[in-house]
Amino acid sequence: MTKSSPVPITVLGLGAMGRALANAFLIGGHPTAVWNRTPGRHAELVAAGATSAATVDEAVAAGGLIVACLLDHGSVHDVLDPVAGDLAGRTVVNLTSTAPSDARELAAWAECHGIEYLDGGIMSIPAMIGRPESFLLYSGSKEVFDENRAVLELLGSAEYFGADAGMASLYDFALLAAMYTMFAGFSHGAAMVRTEGVPATEFAKHAVQWLSAMVQVLPLSGEAIEAGAEADGQSLDFTKAALDAIVRASREAGVGLDVVGPLKALVDRQVADGHGAKAFDAVFEGVRAPGSE
Amino acid sequence: MTKSSPVPITVLGLGAMGRALANAFLIGGHPTAVWNRTPGRHAELVAAGATSAATVDEAVAAGGLIVACLLDHGSVHDVLDPVAGDLAGRTVVNLTSTAPSDARELAAWAECHGIEYLDGGIMSIPAMIGRPESFLLYSGSKEVFDENRAVLELLGSAEYFGADAGMASLYDFALLAAMYTMFAGFSHGAAMVRTEGVPATEFAKHAVQWLSAMVQVLPLSGEAIEAGAEADGQSLDFTKAALDAIVRASREAGVGLDVVGPLKALVDRQVADGHGAKAFDAVFEGVRAPGSE
Ligand SMILES: NC(=O)c1ccc[n+]([C@@H]2O[C@H](COP(=O)([O-])OP(=O)(O)OC[C@H]3O[C@@H](n4cnc5c(N)ncnc54)[C@H](OP(=O)(O)O)[C@@H]3O)[C@@H](O)[C@H]2O)c1
Ligand SMILES: NC(=O)c1ccc[n+]([C@@H]2O[C@H](COP(=O)([O-])OP(=O)(O)OC[C@H]3O[C@@H](n4cnc5c(N)ncnc54)[C@H](OP(=O)(O)O)[C@@H]3O)[C@@H](O)[C@H]2O)c1
Repeated sequence: MTKSSPVPITVLGLGAMGRALANAFLIGGHPTAVWNRTPGRHAELVAAGATSAATVDEAVAAGGLIVACLLDHGSVHDVLDPVAGDLAGRTVVNLTSTAPSDARELAAWAECHGIEYLDGGIMSIPAMIGRPESFLLYSGSKEVFDENRAVLELLGSAEYFGADAGMASLYDFALLAAMYTMFAGFSHGAAMVRTEGVPATEFAKHAVQWLSAMVQVLPLSGEAIEAGAEADGQSLDFTKAALDAIVRASREAGVGLDVVGPLKALVDRQVADGHGAKAFDAVFEGVRAPGSE
Repeated sequence: MTKSSPVPITVLGLGAMGRALANAFLIGGHPTAVWNRTPGRHAELVAAGATSAATVDEAVAAGGLIVACLLDHGSVHDVLDPVAGDLAGRTVVNLTSTAPSDARELAAWAECHGIEYLDGGIMSIPAMIGRPESFLLYSGSKEVFDENRAVLELLGSAEYFGADAGMASLYDFALLAAMYTMFAGFSHGAAMVRTEGVPATEFAKHAVQWLSAMVQVLPLSGEAIEAGAEADGQSLDFTKAALDAIVRASREAGVGLDVVGPLKALVDRQVADGHGAKAFDAVFEGVRAPGSE
């Protein structure tokens, strides 16, 4: 941060996440104006030094950098459309979760109104905002990212993913997809050992150890994918045998196949398509270029 | 290890894994006899000090501890049934991958022949055997585990999961299920960002960072599961909205729904069953007590 006085910030949206963001800006010493559609959510922030704006107009007039953290794509338009004229020449950082196509639409809308636009995805929860483990993805205007980097890093680690405003969201969704899938796999494993009375807390200890090690293998998996899965890791035939055994044991134990059944189907299809000798990572092609379903 | 001379070991099965095991025992200074159905796989081991047995009888006669690492449950019976009489009073550690029910069957078979039996699951690959990151699970005879712990730790870290011989295998399958599911989730994420030209190697860097952090959350997930998913984490309603958005964005990008589609279906079902306000971990119940499918 420079010695010049901290840039003022306006936070639009005081849900759980918007409040956490505003709080981090206040802690960082920025004059912070806050606004929320439904009144009454600003008390703690005002006590911490924020100024409360009664209208979006007032909020926009108060601040330098506009940070939006609303519900979804539609709510961003609801809030910003009426003040689009006032935003010309100003900067909007939109931290509302939106789909890649929505982020691109908002970037185009902003450009057409002469607004500098940076889209962001928050890979965190409100309680973690402001900590380095908090991980925020950005794309859109590189200038906005570079100029405001110190401000953005008040929220957590900040990474820029390119000028296409949809990239942060695409990465966000891709990482969340991987995370939810991993959580589901954990639930399946926990359900299997639970059939013998082992609590999920006990299983978690081993899962943390094992999956932490296996996460470190992902760069090799990335390389195998880029090499057409010709690498000499575990073959899909081997994986198929393992998954067949896991599915059979799950069924015997009365555990649902919601999670591992479709995975077996995917691997079976790849093997049926003649990829059995390839590395496990060949399933990537099955996902990337889906068959006719 | 004690100062007494190292116990002799017999390794039955010289596939990729059996050879790695025998090699680790040799490095640990144990007189090691090796046997394989098809001859010609022992050359390197013999050069390293192993003795090669021409028959299973000879192999069993040579050794103290019998370690089997064959293809599957059936091959273990093929090899051990003919020498069952000679094995009475001896100890067999079976590191062949088998289903929990198969491991239990083998333990019962061993008991009936007066054989001490320990079942093991190898969470590793041949190249990693002998390193501490290599992770082996054991269940069955506690005496066999305790007495041979130093020998077993030559292969990697060793953990005992109880007297039920099927437990090591159940844990093995549960952890592998979680691992394969995580890998599939990675493939889905990689397929999403690939639609914008990002290579899987690039995605892997971020996935390692993100999933490493999220793996650390699994103990909380275990607690939430044990508490009936009443904990105040992210609600299933919230997860449903996120998965809906991810599925929509995946479809828009032309990415297959093999991995995330079934996950969405599972969450949708839990929400339809009235669990929307529960934590994400409520999907565990959906897997554990599957509906009528
Ligand atoms: N919470 C998390 O863990 C988390 C994590 C990552 C990303 N995010 C993202 O961050 C954003 C905010 O999440 P949150 O947890 O703060 O949600 P929240 O607590 O539900 O708050 C939603 C906010 O959006 C406002 N809003 C909704 N519709 C509106 C409309 N049509 N016009 C004006 N304002 C509207 C709400 O105002 P009212 O008070 O008037 O309803 C409220 O301020 C979401 O996009 C979410 O996906 C959240
Ligand atoms: N490789 C891994 O990464 C890995 C990881 C974890 C666990 N495991 C487990 O370790 C075990 C061995 O794996 P591996 O990689 O060594 O497999 P492999 O290279 O395919 O070797 C299989 C071994 O089993 C023998 N065999 C198969 N059928 C037999 C029969 N009916 N009678 C006698 N011998 C028979 C083979 O003998 P021939 O030479 O005569 O065919 C060979 O020695 C498997 O249960 C596997 O699941 C392996």
